[in-house]
Amino acid sequence: MSALSVLPPECLLQPFIVPKRLMLGPGPSNVPARISAAGAQPMLGHLHAETIEIMNQIKSGIQYAFQTQNRVTLAVSGPGHAAMECAIFNSLEPGESVLIAVNGIWGERAAEIAERIGAKVNTVVTSAGGYFTNEEIEQALDKYRPVVFFLTHGESSTGVVHPIDGIGDLCHKYNCLFLVDSVAALGGTPICMDEQGIDIMYTGSQKVLNAPPGTAPISFSERACYHHTGPITSFYGLRESLAILAETGLENSWKRHKEVAEYFHKGLEEMGLKLFVQDKKARLPTVTTIVAPPGYDWREITGYIMKTYNIEISGGLGPSAGMVLRVGLMGCNSSKANVDLVLEALADALKHCHKSRV
Amino acid sequence: MSALSVLPPECLLQPFIVPKRLMLGPGPSNVPARISAAGAQPMLGHLHAETIEIMNQIKSGIQYAFQTQNRVTLAVSGPGHAAMECAIFNSLEPGESVLIAVNGIWGERAAEIAERIGAKVNTVVTSAGGYFTNEEIEQALDKYRPVVFFLTHGESSTGVVHPIDGIGDLCHKYNCLFLVDSVAALGGTPICMDEQGIDIMYTGSQKVLNAPPGTAPISFSERACYHHTGPITSFYGLRESLAILAETGLENSWKRHKEVAEYFHKGLEEMGLKLFVQDKKARLPTVTTIVAPPGYDWREITGYIMKTYNIEISGGLGPSAGMVLRVGLMGCNSSKANVDLVLEALADALKHCHKSRV
Repeated sequence: MSALSVLPPECLLQPFIVPKRLMLGPGPSNVPARISAAGAQPMLGHLHAETIEIMNQIKSGIQYAFQTQNRVTLAVSGPGHAAMECAIFNSLEPGESVLIAVNGIWGERAAEIAERIGAKVNTVVTSAGGYFTNEEIEQALDKYRPVVFFLTHGESSTGVVHPIDGIGDLCHKYNCLFLVDSVAALGGTPICMDEQGIDIMYTGSQKVLNAPPGTAPISFSERACYHHTGPITSFYGLRESLAILAETGLENSWKRHKEVAEYFHKGLEEMGLKLFVQDKKARLPTVTTIVAPPGYDWREITGYIMKTYNIEISGGLGPSAGMVLRVGLMGCNSSKANVDLVLEALADALKHCHKSRV
Repeated sequence: MSALSVLPPECLLQPFIVPKRLMLGPGPSNVPARISAAGAQPMLGHLHAETIEIMNQIKSGIQYAFQTQNRVTLAVSGPGHAAMECAIFNSLEPGESVLIAVNGIWGERAAEIAERIGAKVNTVVTSAGGYFTNEEIEQALDKYRPVVFFLTHGESSTGVVHPIDGIGDLCHKYNCLFLVDSVAALGGTPICMDEQGIDIMYTGSQKVLNAPPGTAPISFSERACYHHTGPITSFYGLRESLAILAETGLENSWKRHKEVAEYFHKGLEEMGLKLFVQDKKARLPTVTTIVAPPGYDWREITGYIMKTYNIEISGGLGPSAGMVLRVGLMGCNSSKANVDLVLEALADALKHCHKSRV
């Protein structure tokens, strides 16, 4: 073997330093010390008895967070997007009819995945910021007779929390599975899988749960298993994040997210800013969408706040691109102290950023 | 909303404790403190400038570890198995012909994935512990005219390191891509992607690199990108593991793995144990396969060593199931001190485990 042609890269021979930053975008959120410390515990084998026990604890924690007794409740080794694929791939066959409620980017994404599988994709669509009544959903179920109905609980692109009550019963009346994406909402606003007749539900680890991205809780009435080297130390973090939720209590978590969001919304309105979602009860407590302040370039505002305050907030996504600012207050980040910080940063940005006449 | 029907699980209200264990199976290997500490650094956004910079550092580190200049060099968010899927999915279309060298379980697995895609799967097969000559490979390339040839560099189920020299040229002569699985070998035994004409190669983070499972280095001549919330803190660990390799130097890593493996093999033979791979130069330095000691139940041996010494070694897998014991000495675990430990544990197990007359 001759001498190596690629030399050790200089950038790897420097010490590794990561800046601290307040992560108030639509996710990932900050990871509490207790959860990062869990991820640094010693490596175990993916089939060791202790790892199986940790997976069982995670299963119990997800059953609690989801409010379900489902036996097939697990963490997918991947981000929330992997759980979305897992949910859709395991519930749809080529040629089958699926109904997808599109009120933002996540419904669009689900429709793309279902199309790739070769399913017959039907959609109901609202404008950005809207949601569906149960009557509209029933009409569509009756018309398309799908085997699966997909709904986004917390639409992070528009800041809408979708009502869930009654939809499970409608789905079952039409012999259809009710599939719910709760990536941006779970733990921050009420949802009870079994009581609300949800057949498949998933979330992400990096939102309200505050664990690092890389493990995604999911629950099914039946179906699907995996075998590979799971991301064991990431599971440690998820175990700890579910333990924090179990200690806090789900109702307390919902209550805190609601109170903090309302406190934030009041502060924004006092500053003269407008909320993108008009209907108060449809406002997602985990991700707030603010109408982009007229006359400003939203990029300058988010850039100023990142540079001056080391706080991440973000612009719109998909249907809300260019129309909104998005602020995430999830898990440990859902606190009045963080609201005060971000309100101060916003006020300062509006003072310092360029404003054109409107 | 009525009171919750699923209560906080008791198991999550207990403190989280993970035992320390010496991981000398075929992977995952132990994670050095420096790498776990990296994983506990503060969360960043998946699109922040610093994250992009970390991904660039990882790219440089993989280019060094793989000895390649390939532009499309990245870490897949998932275990080595995800990289295998990524490699096969991105190089094969339904109906295309693929040739897979099967000398253990990973070739079998690759054939299964290729079949699911709808490719025309052709295989060359050896008995467990065997490998292929370049003449045999050329005959098969000529016969099947595949668009991709798949070869496992380090077959962890049998402990064989496959010769690579000359195969890239043969593939290109037959207008075929050369795809190499180096999950269990990379960093522990020489392979130089560009020099050896390899078109696609991948490895796992949890073997010689000693990072937690969940990120898998891969490199392509062209093709494929991803967009989702990457497992950011897992990337921190991978960055640090590649930094350790860059500091150590690839040749020193290869040399240490070889010396430690030979020291181990000598010790085993002195104990009267037999190596499964007869041909010395085909012995994988990262995973040693030992002929299961006659008269013993291998499960009792691995169980005794786990219980008495807190050391993981494992039995066979796939074609070597029931036939061998497997000991992994990868990355930080590749040391003469660990060899002494595992030799002592094996000698003790042979004394204490039940032996039938043979």
